[in-house]
Amino acid sequence: MDKYSQYRGVAERLGADAVALVPGPNFERLTGHSFHSHERPLLIVIPTTGTPAAIVPNLELRSFDLLGFEGEVFDWRDQDGYADAFTALAAHMPLQKLAVEGQVMRVFVHHALLEANPGLSILDGEREISGLRIHKTEDEVAALREAIRISEAALGDVLAEVRIGMTEKQVEAMLIQALFRNGSDGLAFDPIVAAGDNSARPHASARADYAIQDGDALLFDFGATHGGFMADITRTVFVGHASDAARAVYDTVLRANLKGHEITRPGVTAHDIDDAVTSVLEASPYVDRIRTKTGHGLGRAVHEHPYIMRGNTLVLEPGMVFTNEPGLYDLASFGVRIEDDILVTEDGCVSLTTFPKDLTVVG
Amino acid sequence: MDKYSQYRGVAERLGADAVALVPGPNFERLTGHSFHSHERPLLIVIPTTGTPAAIVPNLELRSFDLLGFEGEVFDWRDQDGYADAFTALAAHMPLQKLAVEGQVMRVFVHHALLEANPGLSILDGEREISGLRIHKTEDEVAALREAIRISEAALGDVLAEVRIGMTEKQVEAMLIQALFRNGSDGLAFDPIVAAGDNSARPHASARADYAIQDGDALLFDFGATHGGFMADITRTVFVGHASDAARAVYDTVLRANLKGHEITRPGVTAHDIDDAVTSVLEASPYVDRIRTKTGHGLGRAVHEHPYIMRGNTLVLEPGMVFTNEPGLYDLASFGVRIEDDILVTEDGCVSLTTFPKDLTVVG
Repeated sequence: MDKYSQYRGVAERLGADAVALVPGPNFERLTGHSFHSHERPLLIVIPTTGTPAAIVPNLELRSFDLLGFEGEVFDWRDQDGYADAFTALAAHMPLQKLAVEGQVMRVFVHHALLEANPGLSILDGEREISGLRIHKTEDEVAALREAIRISEAALGDVLAEVRIGMTEKQVEAMLIQALFRNGSDGLAFDPIVAAGDNSARPHASARADYAIQDGDALLFDFGATHGGFMADITRTVFVGHASDAARAVYDTVLRANLKGHEITRPGVTAHDIDDAVTSVLEASPYVDRIRTKTGHGLGRAVHEHPYIMRGNTLVLEPGMVFTNEPGLYDLASFGVRIEDDILVTEDGCVSLTTFPKDLTVVG
Repeated sequence: MDKYSQYRGVAERLGADAVALVPGPNFERLTGHSFHSHERPLLIVIPTTGTPAAIVPNLELRSFDLLGFEGEVFDWRDQDGYADAFTALAAHMPLQKLAVEGQVMRVFVHHALLEANPGLSILDGEREISGLRIHKTEDEVAALREAIRISEAALGDVLAEVRIGMTEKQVEAMLIQALFRNGSDGLAFDPIVAAGDNSARPHASARADYAIQDGDALLFDFGATHGGFMADITRTVFVGHASDAARAVYDTVLRANLKGHEITRPGVTAHDIDDAVTSVLEASPYVDRIRTKTGHGLGRAVHEHPYIMRGNTLVLEPGMVFTNEPGLYDLASFGVRIEDDILVTEDGCVSLTTFPKDLTVVG
């Protein structure tokens, strides 16, 4: 079995002649390398049979050499543009139907492929291509555990230092420094540090002009990366004190989160988990404050399969990893989300995140 | 003049009915807000006349409210998928030809637009849409200056601490912590910290398994961000000592870099600058070690117009900002790049970067 066989299989299943990969999580899984792509197309095309080919910016050739890529490489220089490389690739490997990663490839590459081969049919193979990453190996789980260990160490450092009067931006900067001080390779995504009314938004941006108040909810949603794998953790704490209303909401979200852990095992569907978790929220007085599904897969990308969502009949199997992140939003002045990363095991599940979830008051 | 008029003008010039913006630098320029997009389409469509419309994930509605967007909003929930929102948009705003940002929009959004409106012609308007950002206002230059100030402070901190025996990864982590400690909002891109043979690659990745040796070149290419604007600076230093060969290469690259500053003024073309800078390198013994054009524009994106490249007849005007980053690569065991950020002024240019460029030995 050659290292391309899974991708050849995807092309066959989709009725395509080939799969194209651009820099991103699938490319990194295949090659072990990442590239800054910016305005310069770089892609590998893997046909159902035969040798792959690649388009590579000339200035990346020495980095591309590290891949030990054995196929034809069509390189191009900025001064000349990339159109000729796409034309040469089309002549070298005539294709009728090509599967691409729809959530990674950008439109300018799509257009370049079509300009070189106007009859080409381009199919969005994102689900099938990225679906190859759905079962994590032991090494991959170990990388995730390390990313999570670093994330939790950083959060512990920051919670010990948060004080009333700091801005969200200040706390975000503390968190990022703590992540790298604890050994992170990078940021899984721009961290969310949201206090008070900003915590009521599922995806908030940290503000430089809002100072944390006594009684505020303070939501952290962030992740370290390690060896190409990404943690994704949310904890909501309270600063100074927590009101009775906040405690009641927090308790509801925590019960929903615990329900997710309780029912996760091989054989249940993604639907079942979202349904069970969301039902806890729906049975509460906060039924109109639900804004999100329960979670998403996690690995080389911070959002990937399986999506933990009603209607998704995918059956969980050992080795799948996903987030369990119920939340309640759009309350008068706050929101609460509690997010763990869960690994499906042979006979149940294990939470890779172990940071305490009891209601915590800091500062 | 409404705030959409520039985008309406782009659509008209391209013979399109509308321009679509997805989260990214143009979207942030228009709205002042950023979004985590991941697997969820979010876009604003601006027609040549009339009110814009938007597609927004339901969970982002409260964040989207911050934009004060006055047009129709088609929201969608994860459980239902986004196809209906695209169909509703197509019915609300029938389009024949739509200009998109080809380097920002991903293929799955392109496909969703076409599925909802199979007759739609989608045009890559990247050059024209992003070209609107080419002249920086005073406020924008101030934000760039601050991003650069933070970057240079961080580099100074790191150079004081680098020692023989550290790994590239360790130095990278020091640099990132120093950026946030000095006030950065984020990272313009994953920093490049490359020692020894890795510095010979134009875009290297930091290694955890290479310890810096006495005599190594050590190349830093990175940038802070501030207020949505991105610095991009490269300095190459030597650790322990610099060989005569290294000094000769360094001197050549520095002369090329200084030539770029010398000739930049309104009225010269992007071609002229690349030609003058590259000619210095071509006149050296290292003519076969040139791998890149001289530079690229810089602002809300780390690579944008104007591209400083032979063949680009764009005439420089006051307010344009670009990188001047000649380099020599693929030498036996090192490479050198020196990169400044240059602002074109009424009567010449000013280097926004002021970090010393004399050959420096650290550690």
